[in-house]
Amino acid sequence: MITEINTGLPAMADPSVIQPGDEMYQIVTRLYPICRSITGNGVRQTLQILQDYIPVQIKEVPTGTPVFDWTVPKEWNIQDAWIKDPQGNIILSFKDHNLHVLNYSTPIHKTVSLAELKPHLFSLPDKPDWIPYRTSYYNENWGFCMTHRQLESLEDGDYEVCIDSSLEPGSLTYGECFLPGSTEEEVLISCHICHPSLANDNLSGISLAVKLIQWLQEQPHRYSYRFLFIPGTIGSITWLSLNEQQAFKIKHGLVATLVGDSGRFTYKKSRRGNATIDRAAAHALKHIQLPYHIIDFFPYGYDERQYCSPGFNLPVGCLMRTPHGQYPEYHTSADNLDLVQPQNLTESYQLYKTILQILEGNGIYVNQNPKCEPQLGKRGLYRAISGDNHTKSYEMAMLWVLNLSDGEHSLLEIAEKADIPFEFIQKVAVLLEEHGLLKLQTFL
Amino acid sequence: MITEINTGLPAMADPSVIQPGDEMYQIVTRLYPICRSITGNGVRQTLQILQDYIPVQIKEVPTGTPVFDWTVPKEWNIQDAWIKDPQGNIILSFKDHNLHVLNYSTPIHKTVSLAELKPHLFSLPDKPDWIPYRTSYYNENWGFCMTHRQLESLEDGDYEVCIDSSLEPGSLTYGECFLPGSTEEEVLISCHICHPSLANDNLSGISLAVKLIQWLQEQPHRYSYRFLFIPGTIGSITWLSLNEQQAFKIKHGLVATLVGDSGRFTYKKSRRGNATIDRAAAHALKHIQLPYHIIDFFPYGYDERQYCSPGFNLPVGCLMRTPHGQYPEYHTSADNLDLVQPQNLTESYQLYKTILQILEGNGIYVNQNPKCEPQLGKRGLYRAISGDNHTKSYEMAMLWVLNLSDGEHSLLEIAEKADIPFEFIQKVAVLLEEHGLLKLQTFL
Amino acid sequence: MITEINTGLPAMADPSVIQPGDEMYQIVTRLYPICRSITGNGVRQTLQILQDYIPVQIKEVPTGTPVFDWTVPKEWNIQDAWIKDPQGNIILSFKDHNLHVLNYSTPIHKTVSLAELKPHLFSLPDKPDWIPYRTSYYNENWGFCMTHRQLESLEDGDYEVCIDSSLEPGSLTYGECFLPGSTEEEVLISCHICHPSLANDNLSGISLAVKLIQWLQEQPHRYSYRFLFIPGTIGSITWLSLNEQQAFKIKHGLVATLVGDSGRFTYKKSRRGNATIDRAAAHALKHIQLPYHIIDFFPYGYDERQYCSPGFNLPVGCLMRTPHGQYPEYHTSADNLDLVQPQNLTESYQLYKTILQILEGNGIYVNQNPKCEPQLGKRGLYRAISGDNHTKSYEMAMLWVLNLSDGEHSLLEIAEKADIPFEFIQKVAVLLEEHGLLKLQTFL
Repeated sequence: MITEINTGLPAMADPSVIQPGDEMYQIVTRLYPICRSITGNGVRQTLQILQDYIPVQIKEVPTGTPVFDWTVPKEWNIQDAWIKDPQGNIILSFKDHNLHVLNYSTPIHKTVSLAELKPHLFSLPDKPDWIPYRTSYYNENWGFCMTHRQLESLEDGDYEVCIDSSLEPGSLTYGECFLPGSTEEEVLISCHICHPSLANDNLSGISLAVKLIQWLQEQPHRYSYRFLFIPGTIGSITWLSLNEQQAFKIKHGLVATLVGDSGRFTYKKSRRGNATIDRAAAHALKHIQLPYHIIDFFPYGYDERQYCSPGFNLPVGCLMRTPHGQYPEYHTSADNLDLVQPQNLTESYQLYKTILQILEGNGIYVNQNPKCEPQLGKRGLYRAISGDNHTKSYEMAMLWVLNLSDGEHSLLEIAEKADIPFEFIQKVAVLLEEHGLLKLQTFL
Repeated sequence: MITEINTGLPAMADPSVIQPGDEMYQIVTRLYPICRSITGNGVRQTLQILQDYIPVQIKEVPTGTPVFDWTVPKEWNIQDAWIKDPQGNIILSFKDHNLHVLNYSTPIHKTVSLAELKPHLFSLPDKPDWIPYRTSYYNENWGFCMTHRQLESLEDGDYEVCIDSSLEPGSLTYGECFLPGSTEEEVLISCHICHPSLANDNLSGISLAVKLIQWLQEQPHRYSYRFLFIPGTIGSITWLSLNEQQAFKIKHGLVATLVGDSGRFTYKKSRRGNATIDRAAAHALKHIQLPYHIIDFFPYGYDERQYCSPGFNLPVGCLMRTPHGQYPEYHTSADNLDLVQPQNLTESYQLYKTILQILEGNGIYVNQNPKCEPQLGKRGLYRAISGDNHTKSYEMAMLWVLNLSDGEHSLLEIAEKADIPFEFIQKVAVLLEEHGLLKLQTFL
Repeated sequence: MITEINTGLPAMADPSVIQPGDEMYQIVTRLYPICRSITGNGVRQTLQILQDYIPVQIKEVPTGTPVFDWTVPKEWNIQDAWIKDPQGNIILSFKDHNLHVLNYSTPIHKTVSLAELKPHLFSLPDKPDWIPYRTSYYNENWGFCMTHRQLESLEDGDYEVCIDSSLEPGSLTYGECFLPGSTEEEVLISCHICHPSLANDNLSGISLAVKLIQWLQEQPHRYSYRFLFIPGTIGSITWLSLNEQQAFKIKHGLVATLVGDSGRFTYKKSRRGNATIDRAAAHALKHIQLPYHIIDFFPYGYDERQYCSPGFNLPVGCLMRTPHGQYPEYHTSADNLDLVQPQNLTESYQLYKTILQILEGNGIYVNQNPKCEPQLGKRGLYRAISGDNHTKSYEMAMLWVLNLSDGEHSLLEIAEKADIPFEFIQKVAVLLEEHGLLKLQTFL
């Protein structure tokens, strides 16, 4: 039992076995072609596919429902869209790529001059071969997105444009999966499902949530877990508005997104800045042996904006790889199935799992022999021959746990002070409890 | 209205228009020839000249008045002083430079040998062409200051020395300019007026105070402003002694000095170390885009020594460019009209103004829609087409103000956390208040 | 009186006079040959020699005495030990080096094959010429330690092994020296005395304690001082168990060990992390002008493990040079009289003395003229001619003490803020008190 501590995470990516990331990548691949938006059939279809993997409930909230300062918008659906050039050739088609349409475009079918058309065309001059992703949710408008190369090649003349969409009363659709634990306190995992064919921004987080649900279903857990699959901004506002009291059961939360690219991990702290979720994430990252950095909360980004609004101020952070806007493919057609890779997804999944394990295992134990060290040797917990240095062993973990288990330090705080992975601190705490040297005071 | 934030200060120094520093430099030039000391006609004459610019009151405190542990000293005045060499030639004359006389020298007229004279001569061996500035306020003594080059050239023989001064009962003179605001709480700006022909050390601060008074007279202000033009040490002790209760109305204060050289800015914190003035100065400096550094309080320097004595502990910092003793010209004849430059004065004035604007505008606002973000778009406060990154915009400033306006963060604290200049944070706070999204809880 | 502050410690090591380290080295040399252990005659003999220098009391605690979770072990004594090779030649003898025997070996005399012998032999493969130091206190066992070179040269065959030791009921022996001061509050200096011929690890600390006792005997002191000469771990557990209430009189403490090598100083903080002893040690180190570093408490090392167990949590740090396990000679025959040097011992002694002087002199004084500075000049405490910069003078020390003596800052805190050695801060505090400008509120 007395061995060196392996300070890394559980070994990752044995190439001969199926990794979690392989299954996650399959989900990403399956969902990639669907044209999602903040409402509409694309979201419903996405959630129906997820029901093949997890018990997710599909909820509908009618257009016009007031949700805090907002109103649930009209439902948007689209069948097709295209542009014909002056010669009548289709030069751009929704069927080729759903990013070609300004998301939430109103229906239109008319012929316009190039000059009239141009204000409705969006491209990326510095990335001339990529299609941008643009939306116009709350200002009725229509438009097309195309490569800048194509935009520049357009000749004068009349263009026939068609967007066969509808923007009508309907509902906002979201998914919710609740896994009751032994307590009513909740951990929230929230991901957005409103982006069309964008793989990292949206699908990677969805696949991670699915995998975490499957893992949690296989074992007992103290916390109840709530997973939300929601359209960005309006989805979290809607859920918070309809579940205002429920929201305060959330003790820890993470917004899961952008977890499939190969960039270093980025943890964006909750607004509180020193919540347990912030410390658990920082601790897990410190020992993951992969590059990472931690940033303070700022009121922009994903749905943490709403969870961390001052009236809620929930302990919800955002754990991603490269943040939004910081990788060149962000919000373009290049955020595709090449950008996301199974190995990256596996690493992200392992990291999330480690964090949840910390939350599950964290508690305060009390040393039952607080005056001087207990004699570990007579209990078979110590080496027989003394003489070497061994600052990274189970023994050191035991000494740390005994020294700091004064009723004021949680296991996570002990792991932080000892600079030893939580997993080992927790293991020796359980061992010392079995030997009567520690007593659990409370889980946290 | 939605535009990028210009993170610099208001533009400085358009060469075609008269800058504040030009007018300040004229004041410095006009005051430079006067022989000031901690008492006497030099101070009176200085203050009378200032009355050409600002409504400054001239106060007289009789010799012998007890002021805490001190006593107002005798008044010192000087008409002339000179040294004649053994051949009877005048080799040094007060009329050439008022630094030639040990400040507060008692009257003398006699002939002494070089050996007797030498203990009364002061020079700077390592700066052989500069005249040092020396004083002997509280030990009656007489003496001359000269270049080291001249000192070394003195030949043996008898020297006739004459100091036509008087040290007699009279009064200590100081100036006070009070600008009442809408509240009784005060901001103190204190500068010393006791140095003879020294331009940076003394005159630059005086000219800055004059310019700030002129600016404040042109507009409404919440705070009442008290400007003191006082002899160093004994002046602040005298004012504090005679205005002990009044002193506790001071909520923020700055000692203004050494603002005309070209060195980087130095802010010396108040003894409290984290007073609002300390944070306002640090914030203004962070965004000024000129070199600066911030140092902790220490009990030496200018009149902050008295304002920050433990019995007062007022929130008074000292904002200068190169600190005393840290530029070679300090306390020598080289601290002259060449060392001080209009552009430097302009920058210093702008910085002080920015700090006062922060003090004036700082308050706590409360978000009226604290649960989730309010919908800015429907109020015309948000871009129509979404998709780009824009972390330095009015929108970001709005999101920061909304997120942190929970009744616990002042605008200055929000500006610090957001790392956005206070000016913009304040602007969007006022805009959000106009739209009913914020409510002013209290000015600070 | 107004002179520059010499920021170093009192001058060290004038080669023409006997230094403290010379006398300490003599003690180390005298004690080096003795075979100590956690019990037995080696400890008694060691303490009897110390009685030649200091009034140390020798205490005996019977085998079997329960001490918290532990029991005082049987007493171990040894007369001789050897190994004969298959040819009957003595190849290893306890008389050559007492490290040759596994400390606490049970008696044995038999002939064994090399294969049977090998599990009882200990060596250091990567330091083939050094004998390791190994113990087996709490698991009855026997064994020999030898150089790896010798171990590798052993040929097959039968070896006669003899350990003429006894492990029988007896007692645990320790030494205690108590120097009453003017208060009952105590400073603890604890050193271990359980290592056989190891010079730095054990003897250097003992010699330091002796020298500090001699110094304290020569002068009055506020604190009572308790010096413990104890076997590691079981000794401190025994003392704490038998003196549980007494222990809470300890206001400051240091574990003294490893003070004779030439490495930089290492201060390991108490578990509290910001106790006065931690600040006093950090302050003394900052001004010693020798390399050092400061580390946080961790629950391994020397008897601070017991003093800082959560049920006691005493403010006891550990001040050493190179920490245990971090110099190659640690726990080997190379930790000998060459590793320890008089100059190193002198420096360590001076540092400890400086820390004790800080503890003795630390107090809170109150400025009797808190409103503005008092006029130092009229009391002869200030220079006559003003004009130079002098931030490192007695004057600056006076200004700091006056400014911060508001009843909330101790002299040590003032010394820290001023970055001036405590010695000078204390000197000017006493001077200012003599002039009626300060009043002692309380010693700390």
